[in-house]
Amino acid sequence: MQSLSAPLVPLPTILIEPLVREALLEDLGRAGDLTTDAIVPRGLTMKTVMAARQGGVVAGLDLAALAFRLIEPAIRFEALVEDGAAVAPGASVAIVEGPGRGVLTAERVALNFVSRMSGVASATAKLAAAVKHTRARIVCTRKTTPLLRAIEKYAVRAGGGSNHRFGLDDAVLIKDNHVAVAGSVTEAIRRAREYVGHLVKIEVEVETLAQLEEALGAGVDAVLLDNMPLENLKRGVAMIDGRAISEASGRVTPETAGVIAETGVDLISVGWLTHSAPILDIGLDAA
Amino acid sequence: MQSLSAPLVPLPTILIEPLVREALLEDLGRAGDLTTDAIVPRGLTMKTVMAARQGGVVAGLDLAALAFRLIEPAIRFEALVEDGAAVAPGASVAIVEGPGRGVLTAERVALNFVSRMSGVASATAKLAAAVKHTRARIVCTRKTTPLLRAIEKYAVRAGGGSNHRFGLDDAVLIKDNHVAVAGSVTEAIRRAREYVGHLVKIEVEVETLAQLEEALGAGVDAVLLDNMPLENLKRGVAMIDGRAISEASGRVTPETAGVIAETGVDLISVGWLTHSAPILDIGLDAA
Amino acid sequence: MQSLSAPLVPLPTILIEPLVREALLEDLGRAGDLTTDAIVPRGLTMKTVMAARQGGVVAGLDLAALAFRLIEPAIRFEALVEDGAAVAPGASVAIVEGPGRGVLTAERVALNFVSRMSGVASATAKLAAAVKHTRARIVCTRKTTPLLRAIEKYAVRAGGGSNHRFGLDDAVLIKDNHVAVAGSVTEAIRRAREYVGHLVKIEVEVETLAQLEEALGAGVDAVLLDNMPLENLKRGVAMIDGRAISEASGRVTPETAGVIAETGVDLISVGWLTHSAPILDIGLDAA
Amino acid sequence: MQSLSAPLVPLPTILIEPLVREALLEDLGRAGDLTTDAIVPRGLTMKTVMAARQGGVVAGLDLAALAFRLIEPAIRFEALVEDGAAVAPGASVAIVEGPGRGVLTAERVALNFVSRMSGVASATAKLAAAVKHTRARIVCTRKTTPLLRAIEKYAVRAGGGSNHRFGLDDAVLIKDNHVAVAGSVTEAIRRAREYVGHLVKIEVEVETLAQLEEALGAGVDAVLLDNMPLENLKRGVAMIDGRAISEASGRVTPETAGVIAETGVDLISVGWLTHSAPILDIGLDAA
Amino acid sequence: MQSLSAPLVPLPTILIEPLVREALLEDLGRAGDLTTDAIVPRGLTMKTVMAARQGGVVAGLDLAALAFRLIEPAIRFEALVEDGAAVAPGASVAIVEGPGRGVLTAERVALNFVSRMSGVASATAKLAAAVKHTRARIVCTRKTTPLLRAIEKYAVRAGGGSNHRFGLDDAVLIKDNHVAVAGSVTEAIRRAREYVGHLVKIEVEVETLAQLEEALGAGVDAVLLDNMPLENLKRGVAMIDGRAISEASGRVTPETAGVIAETGVDLISVGWLTHSAPILDIGLDAA
Amino acid sequence: MQSLSAPLVPLPTILIEPLVREALLEDLGRAGDLTTDAIVPRGLTMKTVMAARQGGVVAGLDLAALAFRLIEPAIRFEALVEDGAAVAPGASVAIVEGPGRGVLTAERVALNFVSRMSGVASATAKLAAAVKHTRARIVCTRKTTPLLRAIEKYAVRAGGGSNHRFGLDDAVLIKDNHVAVAGSVTEAIRRAREYVGHLVKIEVEVETLAQLEEALGAGVDAVLLDNMPLENLKRGVAMIDGRAISEASGRVTPETAGVIAETGVDLISVGWLTHSAPILDIGLDAA
Repeated sequence: MQSLSAPLVPLPTILIEPLVREALLEDLGRAGDLTTDAIVPRGLTMKTVMAARQGGVVAGLDLAALAFRLIEPAIRFEALVEDGAAVAPGASVAIVEGPGRGVLTAERVALNFVSRMSGVASATAKLAAAVKHTRARIVCTRKTTPLLRAIEKYAVRAGGGSNHRFGLDDAVLIKDNHVAVAGSVTEAIRRAREYVGHLVKIEVEVETLAQLEEALGAGVDAVLLDNMPLENLKRGVAMIDGRAISEASGRVTPETAGVIAETGVDLISVGWLTHSAPILDIGLDAA
Repeated sequence: MQSLSAPLVPLPTILIEPLVREALLEDLGRAGDLTTDAIVPRGLTMKTVMAARQGGVVAGLDLAALAFRLIEPAIRFEALVEDGAAVAPGASVAIVEGPGRGVLTAERVALNFVSRMSGVASATAKLAAAVKHTRARIVCTRKTTPLLRAIEKYAVRAGGGSNHRFGLDDAVLIKDNHVAVAGSVTEAIRRAREYVGHLVKIEVEVETLAQLEEALGAGVDAVLLDNMPLENLKRGVAMIDGRAISEASGRVTPETAGVIAETGVDLISVGWLTHSAPILDIGLDAA
Repeated sequence: MQSLSAPLVPLPTILIEPLVREALLEDLGRAGDLTTDAIVPRGLTMKTVMAARQGGVVAGLDLAALAFRLIEPAIRFEALVEDGAAVAPGASVAIVEGPGRGVLTAERVALNFVSRMSGVASATAKLAAAVKHTRARIVCTRKTTPLLRAIEKYAVRAGGGSNHRFGLDDAVLIKDNHVAVAGSVTEAIRRAREYVGHLVKIEVEVETLAQLEEALGAGVDAVLLDNMPLENLKRGVAMIDGRAISEASGRVTPETAGVIAETGVDLISVGWLTHSAPILDIGLDAA
Repeated sequence: MQSLSAPLVPLPTILIEPLVREALLEDLGRAGDLTTDAIVPRGLTMKTVMAARQGGVVAGLDLAALAFRLIEPAIRFEALVEDGAAVAPGASVAIVEGPGRGVLTAERVALNFVSRMSGVASATAKLAAAVKHTRARIVCTRKTTPLLRAIEKYAVRAGGGSNHRFGLDDAVLIKDNHVAVAGSVTEAIRRAREYVGHLVKIEVEVETLAQLEEALGAGVDAVLLDNMPLENLKRGVAMIDGRAISEASGRVTPETAGVIAETGVDLISVGWLTHSAPILDIGLDAA
Repeated sequence: MQSLSAPLVPLPTILIEPLVREALLEDLGRAGDLTTDAIVPRGLTMKTVMAARQGGVVAGLDLAALAFRLIEPAIRFEALVEDGAAVAPGASVAIVEGPGRGVLTAERVALNFVSRMSGVASATAKLAAAVKHTRARIVCTRKTTPLLRAIEKYAVRAGGGSNHRFGLDDAVLIKDNHVAVAGSVTEAIRRAREYVGHLVKIEVEVETLAQLEEALGAGVDAVLLDNMPLENLKRGVAMIDGRAISEASGRVTPETAGVIAETGVDLISVGWLTHSAPILDIGLDAA
Repeated sequence: MQSLSAPLVPLPTILIEPLVREALLEDLGRAGDLTTDAIVPRGLTMKTVMAARQGGVVAGLDLAALAFRLIEPAIRFEALVEDGAAVAPGASVAIVEGPGRGVLTAERVALNFVSRMSGVASATAKLAAAVKHTRARIVCTRKTTPLLRAIEKYAVRAGGGSNHRFGLDDAVLIKDNHVAVAGSVTEAIRRAREYVGHLVKIEVEVETLAQLEEALGAGVDAVLLDNMPLENLKRGVAMIDGRAISEASGRVTPETAGVIAETGVDLISVGWLTHSAPILDIGLDAA
């Protein structure tokens, strides 16, 4: 899992450009930016500052830069901080300078990306801070915004969290429905092991310590202890004793994360990071 | 603007199918649902209930239905309520029944759409309720999730709100930067009027009553009274006296919306509805 | 509505590039330009002039430039006039210079765009000239070439015309079928007003002065006086008396446009501009 | 080349559906059909007739049918004539019946396709009639509407014409620029023959009888006699004497086509068919 | 890893349809199937049999079925065997019956998919047979045909093989270049472990037993023993002693696979399966 | 048909970029190159050599270059040979130098393209060499890899072969099924001639000399002598006597090609070139 010292590697342009392009087209519609086209003369240049109106952790500057560049290649976007940086309220995060029409036309899309991704990063950072006295790490889920999974998972990393699976195809996560179909945790794990390639890990969600026992006996790679009371989490961790990775989930907030982490679990997964974190308010001001 | 009695018309399938398809592909990756493919036998059918774990307003059932249908046409999706319905915690919103593999594979994407859209609808409904003793209506902004604007605007309607512009091209909204470039509110409005077609309305954002005066003199269609104190809002509404549509924005919460609305403004716009509303928790349970 | 003094703002590259790219792929097929590849050696450069073989108004030079650039970035495209310029027969409109293979391969697509768009602009300019002694303006309709609406609407602006709605979603236009369903003009307008956001204008098509009366009573933004005799148009304009925008349509030609305009209507809409205007003949000659 | 007895085979749905889908999305924008959604209640059905307001040849009914079907699968589209049929003014060409919302929403796109394609077919038919006393056939060019080449070429066939090449890659057409680069007609043909596969024909454009002589000597498959006086055309045909296909082009109108054809040429090519033919006016009326 | 008893689960239609659609468009070009359209009358139906001209293992019947269905929904495709079935030379694998135009138009694309995928499956089966007396399993690599990875990996499963990673993002595979950059196997593994999520496995390629020792010490999940002599493979397997999954690669043929497998390795990976396996000759015959 | 002296013209970037982009996205998945991102630090540059591990003919260097450029524009790709060059085992074909992350991330996709295309070119070259003492030329078929037809046909040209049709729409190829439907070779040819445009050639597949006689009588452009014994091939060539292009197919190998060619046929077509040629092993080594 990702430690604080792991690098935050930018997403390849080839992965993010389709998103930014599509978002710009969504905003431009068929006729483009009527207001700016009507009012801002050709040749006028603007210098603006992208600034955080709240404190938090910034993510998504590459997407913001790309939004301006795709509208107007002559715009200069100079990031003043890097993705993953914690910023204070009012902090400048980038300079955006160039043809005024382009700056104003791309502004909203650029901000929509960076404020949303920074919101995810900031929420992650808050939880990560709450567990930093323990060995636990904060991880996200597949409860992401449709079409934005790659950039939301990136934002979780920017906030100091780790990533759970990216989709249905890069790991096995056996849930209660699968166990019910298979008849038992053991049989579900057996079927999965038989089916998948050698580089695919298997995690199983358990709700009781009896199920946990069974899962460990079947040699699972990771266990998801779902909605367990703290006491059971502790006992679960003791039972696991390093034989599998342990993940806790359910009712995680900045207030509860610390005590959950203190049970000794390796991971705490939080859907809220990607499905409900509010944006970090970031705006564009005349410089 | 949309009244409570206006119908909520479903989005055409041709508009939403590309989103659902793309979201499924995002989740399936290259190899599909490893867990389900390994464990769930062909021929097994499941009956499940989609249920709200919190009270709120439901939106997005068509997208959920489509997610199941695109994975497996044999799945039957029966909506038990309509989009826009207020539901109590625990309420069933749909029956999903059919081949188990398909149900489990499409589940997460279906829920990601419906829980997010219901979150937007529920947040809207809360604000709409707070102003229902007045003539004011709640409207959204362009601060939407990239690529999801059409369905988030729809969710706002489902929650009883109205829609502001859908993009840069369907109306003029003159902001402070545009006024600064033009030199004055009057000149900005003049340029816009000259530029746009006869079916395009012009709104201008004003920060002072002096600017409001100027805007009204220039014959604008709507004015956005941004972040004005309540007292000024009231005086602004009086000045306008029906000559333009009035819109208030800034620091709107369920607590403040009522008093803002009581100033007599026509509209209260809230970016939070689409950029920061938490999801409505909706899950899929064995029936 | 757009005046002659309104700027003609170039369409953003992000909007036109997909069209030009697709058109090039349509022409290249799977094997590319067999003729040029067979005959023109690598390294040979050409200097050519794009010239109007008829007088008219030019539009679409950006798309032509892009066609050459997408095939061969080393080609220099120098526009000698701007979109919207009236040119005489034989006038040079651009220099195209660079690798001969690229010039010849992109030629047809470049010309197909610029001659078609110039055809629309020229037809518009002819009608605009016919009404220039009046306050009336020429507007287009939704009877555009499938997939080319944005660039045809732009060409109308280049010719000195204004744009009607861009699609079904940026304004309401109530037609006879809608009135029939609603039961009356008044009820149709009422439903529309209730349904749409505050920045959406409502226009209604009327065929009689009685319907016009009703529409004005319902407070509509614009009225389309369809196929009315000149006498009725005049009476209609008098009845409207500035309370709504007036649009005339039906049997508009360069010969009739003047007298229609003299009735005092604000707008004259012409489907012919985009569905039937012949191209302006533009070719590429060795320089 | 295509004779009158050759069948008119429908275009595969897989080829036309992307065009119809894209055209619908272009018209729907982000918000769909505001007018219809506001006014037409769910459950209301309509019966309408698609009728030609002018006489001409119909083409594109499959695309119209698809436009309705993609918006609303419950709409029944019954063609009353087949593509290629000559119809009198006022003739009904199809019944469109079903949910009123769908009928009205898809109407404009359906008509835009069918009226444009019928315009091409009708213009072709007019020229074909003018030459029917000869062996000549009318063919189109690559001067087609960008993105619509396949359906415009189909419309030419529907009108009784034949198709020239579909793109740069399915045949060689050596023009003056190519000849200039190669140094001579003979050398240009030699290079082409060496380069292309055995199923690719070679045509060369000649402007003089001397060039024609040279082309025939080089064993070309077809010759394009561009803008030649009638006298030269006749002499050219005699010189060719069946050794190559002969094509005439330049200043072809319904008035001149007959005499050009009487020179004995095999083909008369007309760019106007696809770049400048006006639409055939087709509308949708309540049944 | 996948055992012989693991089910072969069909790929979801949503994953394969874009490939089949694109392949059909590639073959149809702009004008469709000229030959069939010219010769085969509407209404003629055909009954054909898809038959293997060589013995082998069949894969890709769903793609073949889809090719016919996308061209003509009225075609009935009845698979006579399932993907993964071993067939004798001359065996019938499917009945294809319906409108003759559709059958002939889709034939080549259908066969191109099924013969290629069956080629991969057959090559895999041959290797799998060669190692069936051991515990080793045959796995593929990322040396797949561009754009066809998902279906080639599926074909490997159909042939009784297992899948290695599907891409750069679902597992870590540390190669010599990475080790060189990191400075040592240990450091490379450390960096990987720190970086990736908890469900991502780490494999390292080693060329010497010393490197293997180091890798095991660093706690890697799997080791790729690249191009090692048989003797070293045996010693490597002994050293590993169940602490990691062992994979051998390099110079694997049906002749050598058995002895490589007898060294006790878990996996034998073969790029040849997907980059160089010849097709299985499958044709369509009149029934 | 293409002679050895015909130029090998590069495919336009606009045609190949979508393939390379899609292949990179296929490999990157949602999370990108985990291994490289984890291990290779920003700022590290690498110099590598792309080298052929076997002797053969190189093709696809432009696609390889594009793979690197799309991932990292700062990478310098210097081709040391041109497509179509014969190289010895161990020969360097290109230098790839730049940011290490980009080099390693794009490596596999670049190699997958160039090794596959070089495999096709090399197989073609081997057959071309076997017939070089005759007038025969080697041609490919439509049995290509789905989605890769354009680049495989290009690779055939790079190997010294010629191209058969690119799809169903650029030439007529009448096969046994078509003849059966038409009733006779003569009638099939008649229908085709009537249907297609003047630049479309017609080839017919014949299995007997009687059919050949019939085809020649009907004035066909080319005949495919399918699976005929050598003796019949010779007699067929004599019968044809220059009246049509002759193509032989069936059981062509480097061993048999020479004698087939010596029968005097113009073309020998080989599906194996594109459906079953093994790759040319090309790798990337530290420089």
